[in-house]
Amino acid sequence: MSKAIVALLTDFGNRDGYVAAMKAVILSRIGNVEFVDISHEVDPFRIESAAYVLYSVFDFFPPRTVFLCVVDPGVGTSRKALAVEVNQKYLVGPDNGLFSWVLKSRYYRAFSLENASLFGDTVSSTFHGRDIFAPVAAYLARGSEIEAVGPKSDVYIAGWTEVRRGIGVVEGMVIHIDRFGNIITNVRRGSIPEDVEERSGLVIRVKGRRVDRFVKTYGDVPKGTLCALWGSSDHLEISVCCGSAAEFTGARIGDGIFCVW
Amino acid sequence: MSKAIVALLTDFGNRDGYVAAMKAVILSRIGNVEFVDISHEVDPFRIESAAYVLYSVFDFFPPRTVFLCVVDPGVGTSRKALAVEVNQKYLVGPDNGLFSWVLKSRYYRAFSLENASLFGDTVSSTFHGRDIFAPVAAYLARGSEIEAVGPKSDVYIAGWTEVRRGIGVVEGMVIHIDRFGNIITNVRRGSIPEDVEERSGLVIRVKGRRVDRFVKTYGDVPKGTLCALWGSSDHLEISVCCGSAAEFTGARIGDGIFCVW
Amino acid sequence: MSKAIVALLTDFGNRDGYVAAMKAVILSRIGNVEFVDISHEVDPFRIESAAYVLYSVFDFFPPRTVFLCVVDPGVGTSRKALAVEVNQKYLVGPDNGLFSWVLKSRYYRAFSLENASLFGDTVSSTFHGRDIFAPVAAYLARGSEIEAVGPKSDVYIAGWTEVRRGIGVVEGMVIHIDRFGNIITNVRRGSIPEDVEERSGLVIRVKGRRVDRFVKTYGDVPKGTLCALWGSSDHLEISVCCGSAAEFTGARIGDGIFCVW
Repeated sequence: MSKAIVALLTDFGNRDGYVAAMKAVILSRIGNVEFVDISHEVDPFRIESAAYVLYSVFDFFPPRTVFLCVVDPGVGTSRKALAVEVNQKYLVGPDNGLFSWVLKSRYYRAFSLENASLFGDTVSSTFHGRDIFAPVAAYLARGSEIEAVGPKSDVYIAGWTEVRRGIGVVEGMVIHIDRFGNIITNVRRGSIPEDVEERSGLVIRVKGRRVDRFVKTYGDVPKGTLCALWGSSDHLEISVCCGSAAEFTGARIGDGIFCVW
Repeated sequence: MSKAIVALLTDFGNRDGYVAAMKAVILSRIGNVEFVDISHEVDPFRIESAAYVLYSVFDFFPPRTVFLCVVDPGVGTSRKALAVEVNQKYLVGPDNGLFSWVLKSRYYRAFSLENASLFGDTVSSTFHGRDIFAPVAAYLARGSEIEAVGPKSDVYIAGWTEVRRGIGVVEGMVIHIDRFGNIITNVRRGSIPEDVEERSGLVIRVKGRRVDRFVKTYGDVPKGTLCALWGSSDHLEISVCCGSAAEFTGARIGDGIFCVW
Repeated sequence: MSKAIVALLTDFGNRDGYVAAMKAVILSRIGNVEFVDISHEVDPFRIESAAYVLYSVFDFFPPRTVFLCVVDPGVGTSRKALAVEVNQKYLVGPDNGLFSWVLKSRYYRAFSLENASLFGDTVSSTFHGRDIFAPVAAYLARGSEIEAVGPKSDVYIAGWTEVRRGIGVVEGMVIHIDRFGNIITNVRRGSIPEDVEERSGLVIRVKGRRVDRFVKTYGDVPKGTLCALWGSSDHLEISVCCGSAAEFTGARIGDGIFCVW
């Protein structure tokens, strides 16, 4: 059997020992594991952003990967904790919308983490990543049965996975700003007729700015020019060649975006 | 024998190749190793902070883990270099207080790194992490004898591991600010009578602010409210629900904290 | 055969899933691989800086290491994509000067990535790291023949690897600022006569500041003092003991530096 893969996504940052504590807990339970850090620098508590980042990498991982995801403003309160099986992979984390993009339009089985015998010896009130989610991730990484973690559960799918559609118009939202300042939205390829893009009959508005260049790649416009394109995960992205579209426009997560043709 | 684990803690940041150079040195000496990055983003030269982060993860790692720790403002000067065995694990790094929290109240054996045959082929004046500490970490990760690194040594335990106690008062210090802006202090669970917490008879002062809500978890107070709690490593922590207590109060590492009841 | 090592260097940052997507692509193609992150935080699009960071770690990695390097402002345009064999190690990335420091004065064989059967199933216009470079890195990490990636190619070596020399003067450039604010230049040990350093007959100017202390290590001058030294990769470095020389002088990548004796 090939080595277990545990991919981690949190808003814990890289300054503290929080991520290392989770990895240590896993290494104490399963000797041979490959960790992949998806990100620990998503904006604190921004579930929309984390959900998109998770979605953008999910399909590239091999079967049996366990995704340990902790962006969890509700830690210690009554929000559910989940393990989900989808496409032969596993998601572990809080039930707060984090899995929305991955689970939307896929078949999945979800379970509520209630079997405390799988948790750490003591469970703190503030760090379920270490005391609940990491031990359960280790359990699943060993190839154990997901059914044992607790009863079947539904999963909260957040409203921001949907755009509003009209005749010749789509209204969406900024869901992520990447390192380069690219503005990533919840508008997905297929939401806009392809012939409109080709004829450049499309105008996009964000924060009062008008974007009328629809291109294939960042370098297709002169440096400093605002443009739109389908990004590498097929979401509509607003960019500035060799610059930051987020700084240029002032756009932030949660802002509206309007596509008119 | 299970795979060797080398856990790294530095203030080298993630922008440069310094951490990778240390890992490369280790991989050139031992084929099969699992690296865990504890943190490389502790505030430059802030030994108090690094010592706390190390302590917060130490117990979760399995036996035989080698902790390679380089927060080393005195590199190239006469400070000692150490290897320490404690709880069947190993610490490697400079003798400047970095190991204070882990070693305080534990039995340990420490050795001064003086056997230059274990070092790199050339030793630079500015990068002992790569040229001394990493080769010694690789040596220990292979399961070799710690006694061979050099003569027995004592270890410097820093004064900031102690609080000042009076009748109904404990005076401590801010030792770490985490990514979320939580203020972590050197006051540990047990320093304050438990019945005082329960009766809410406790007042904490930091930077002129009064904190009078003692809670179990961040979500126990409304968003934006300042509160105190025992953090996930049993240190007293000042927090703001869904916000940054460090920004709210202006507290920084080294500031005093007063607990009165 | 020992485990394959893939060392990654990008300007993708650690906030997004871009690096994880590349690792996932590699893990889907080769089960047993050791990833080492050199850096993902080099300044966006600053090829000089990335080229130096790569050079600073290259020699420490064992033979057969594959360096997957993506600092690629020209993604999607006509710049070539390369695989290079040098010192029994492999470089994979765009042909934009990124490999200049490593390849300068070494024997190497370079190939243009044109065999699309080695690429991902679909190739996006904006993320060749995931769709071209990572699959080719996995191919080489498996020990496959480099000749199969495409035809032989030359490699662009950037002009900023050269300093200008006069009688008693060397004129160079700032190529990297490290996490501590140390200013790293393209002036290499050997460019300045050794007896000049010893007699302190050397004056260095950067951004109008005069640096006249040439030392062995940071701690050789009082805190806050500007000094020059040969850094851990034998490049001339301007530093401030326990401070940031970049903040002190205002120097940035691309600024000139003058050494006079």
